[in-house]
Amino acid sequence: MVTKKGNLLYGQSGGPTAVINASAYGVISKALSVPNLIGEVFCMHYGIQGAINDDLIPVRELSIERIELLKQTPGAAFGSARHKLADFQKDESEYLKILNTLKKHDIRYLILNGGNDSMDTCHQIGEYLKWKGYDCAVIGIPKTVDNDLLFTDHCPGFGSAAKFVANTITEIAIDCEAYTKGRVTVVEIMGRNAGWLTASSSLASTTGHGPDLIYLPEVPFSMDRFVEDAKAIFARKKRCLVAVSEGIVDEFGVLLGESDTLMDAFGHGQLGGVSHLLANALQEKAQLSCRAIELNLPQRCASHFVSKTDQEEAITLGTIAVEKALAGQSQQMVCMIRIPGEKYQIEYVLHPVKEIANGVKRVPLSMIHPDGNQITPLFNEYASPLIAGEIPLVYQDGLIRFF
Amino acid sequence: MVTKKGNLLYGQSGGPTAVINASAYGVISKALSVPNLIGEVFCMHYGIQGAINDDLIPVRELSIERIELLKQTPGAAFGSARHKLADFQKDESEYLKILNTLKKHDIRYLILNGGNDSMDTCHQIGEYLKWKGYDCAVIGIPKTVDNDLLFTDHCPGFGSAAKFVANTITEIAIDCEAYTKGRVTVVEIMGRNAGWLTASSSLASTTGHGPDLIYLPEVPFSMDRFVEDAKAIFARKKRCLVAVSEGIVDEFGVLLGESDTLMDAFGHGQLGGVSHLLANALQEKAQLSCRAIELNLPQRCASHFVSKTDQEEAITLGTIAVEKALAGQSQQMVCMIRIPGEKYQIEYVLHPVKEIANGVKRVPLSMIHPDGNQITPLFNEYASPLIAGEIPLVYQDGLIRFF
Repeated sequence: MVTKKGNLLYGQSGGPTAVINASAYGVISKALSVPNLIGEVFCMHYGIQGAINDDLIPVRELSIERIELLKQTPGAAFGSARHKLADFQKDESEYLKILNTLKKHDIRYLILNGGNDSMDTCHQIGEYLKWKGYDCAVIGIPKTVDNDLLFTDHCPGFGSAAKFVANTITEIAIDCEAYTKGRVTVVEIMGRNAGWLTASSSLASTTGHGPDLIYLPEVPFSMDRFVEDAKAIFARKKRCLVAVSEGIVDEFGVLLGESDTLMDAFGHGQLGGVSHLLANALQEKAQLSCRAIELNLPQRCASHFVSKTDQEEAITLGTIAVEKALAGQSQQMVCMIRIPGEKYQIEYVLHPVKEIANGVKRVPLSMIHPDGNQITPLFNEYASPLIAGEIPLVYQDGLIRFF
Repeated sequence: MVTKKGNLLYGQSGGPTAVINASAYGVISKALSVPNLIGEVFCMHYGIQGAINDDLIPVRELSIERIELLKQTPGAAFGSARHKLADFQKDESEYLKILNTLKKHDIRYLILNGGNDSMDTCHQIGEYLKWKGYDCAVIGIPKTVDNDLLFTDHCPGFGSAAKFVANTITEIAIDCEAYTKGRVTVVEIMGRNAGWLTASSSLASTTGHGPDLIYLPEVPFSMDRFVEDAKAIFARKKRCLVAVSEGIVDEFGVLLGESDTLMDAFGHGQLGGVSHLLANALQEKAQLSCRAIELNLPQRCASHFVSKTDQEEAITLGTIAVEKALAGQSQQMVCMIRIPGEKYQIEYVLHPVKEIANGVKRVPLSMIHPDGNQITPLFNEYASPLIAGEIPLVYQDGLIRFF
């Protein structure tokens, strides 16, 4: 006979995505479905800070209707955090608070939903709890529009962000095509260390509206080559559409868009402004009319472009995280492996969070054109299934309804 | 017995919107439905330039399927122009070319779809044709996301752009709410002379996600007051969401975002950058973490946020323009009048283009809070019906299908 071991705590971390709450839905609905195994289900209020401050949201206080709305709500419904825990061997204070919270609420299953910084948190907490002899499974669910986690074919959040980028680039291209003599339009896309999301702009090329030039962080950027490339395309087409990653670097590896004054909570410089940099340089050097567009936050919170594939996978990852925690696994992230074959199929496997923490999966060179200014068809083959399918949204008075 | 008088020519002008092609659909489907009255239907290729250069697209060459897709296609499907005709009493050359095109294709119905500059073009061409004794009805169809045309309750294109703004502000607000300590997020919205679109951000307040501060071009902007307002809100909420029009002016009426180097085809300075200006100023003066987001082109080309009301009205305006041209009207724009009452209802009437040309309808002060930093409920009452209803989009492989 299986006995009830305790309660479950779920937390969100890092930048929100359009489907992180779908993973929350997966965790919650699965956990609620096994009352013989899991007692109470809690969500951290504002991520790991909620665990540190004993600020938890009991799921039983939420209505079924609100839980259903999680599936179509972007952002981080229970609050997120960009808080970085210290090494517990140097400073145990926050770990002690977390342990107290876990003990107080008899948490035996801890599930963290985030990117590579969050997988580091999973690893640190897991190690700490083992050291303290507190029995609690710690499982990570991947989440990042950047799609840069190792050991998983892709990350939930990426498919929807890629769908937003591909469709928005299409709409921008159609708008730009309205005039005989156009401009150079430089569109800046998220992705600090990896160009996956910027590369997704090329999905628009399947309908003839893709960017003329695409620049990723994986290839050193040369302003001179960019000016020559853009001039050549403008001479031929009388317009030019450029997609550029916020994370492009020069030949010395220095970020072109790195702000020297602003830092985020993890000590990374705050990015942005690369599109204006390129547009201004081109306008000055080639006397072409240029325009800069930053896609900005809507890339990661556009619930109206959620991919059905992405949403379903995000929910499944939540479900499997609970199952694996119940099966006694710990310090593992649920990964997606693509099964080779004609039809797109995913297998869910575990991988130790330790090996995922702080690593970065970059776009392989086989997906980047040797000239460094375009994407190869291999990328579209990879990304196309991830943006497939639409979700009917619930509207009220012209506005999408959210959690 | 009614006799067939000739052919019809339709043209698009100025910046595209999400529903200008819906008006094209209305014109084309109506014109094709009366073969006993109208022979051939043509569209100008790249707006008035198509008429000048005798570059016309015969509608009979388009498939029914493609004509249907016009309804969900943003941009200007037949090409637009920002070409300003000279005064024909000073320079007749382009008018003569237009007249030759009209004669060559036996055009007796001319329909132009655009903003106030385009209504000026309608007026000029109408006057010229009268002077030359060439019998041709000239009818204008309004179109502008700026919603700033006189004598019409609102303009097609505005409702969909407002829906994009309201939903995107909601999604951004939800994203910003993910953290306990947030930032000041300044969102820049289109609208050179009128704040209608920026005011639409307040529709998000009906679900609790509206901006804390809203600044329109109608009220002189004070940087000092803005800094005080933002500081006060940040102190209370630990975050602040600001919506600002690209067209805000200082107490001397000078545009804050006016570029001193770039001009558009009508000689207006190219706008943009106001959000960065405000974010930088606030960061410096109040030491608050700030972020600037320009909603940019997607505001006017987001087919995925087309309002059903807007699309239906755009189609109806096209239909009525043809009917009025057939009825012998000329140099008139089809306007929408709101019928007072509980239920939102529109009556379509004509108004002389001469009185609409180059005029600007601004947001009335009754819709702006006396402090100049918020909107009154009157605006939401006005705008709410305009964003109502959704259009099921046709997707293929995760991408919206377009004309």
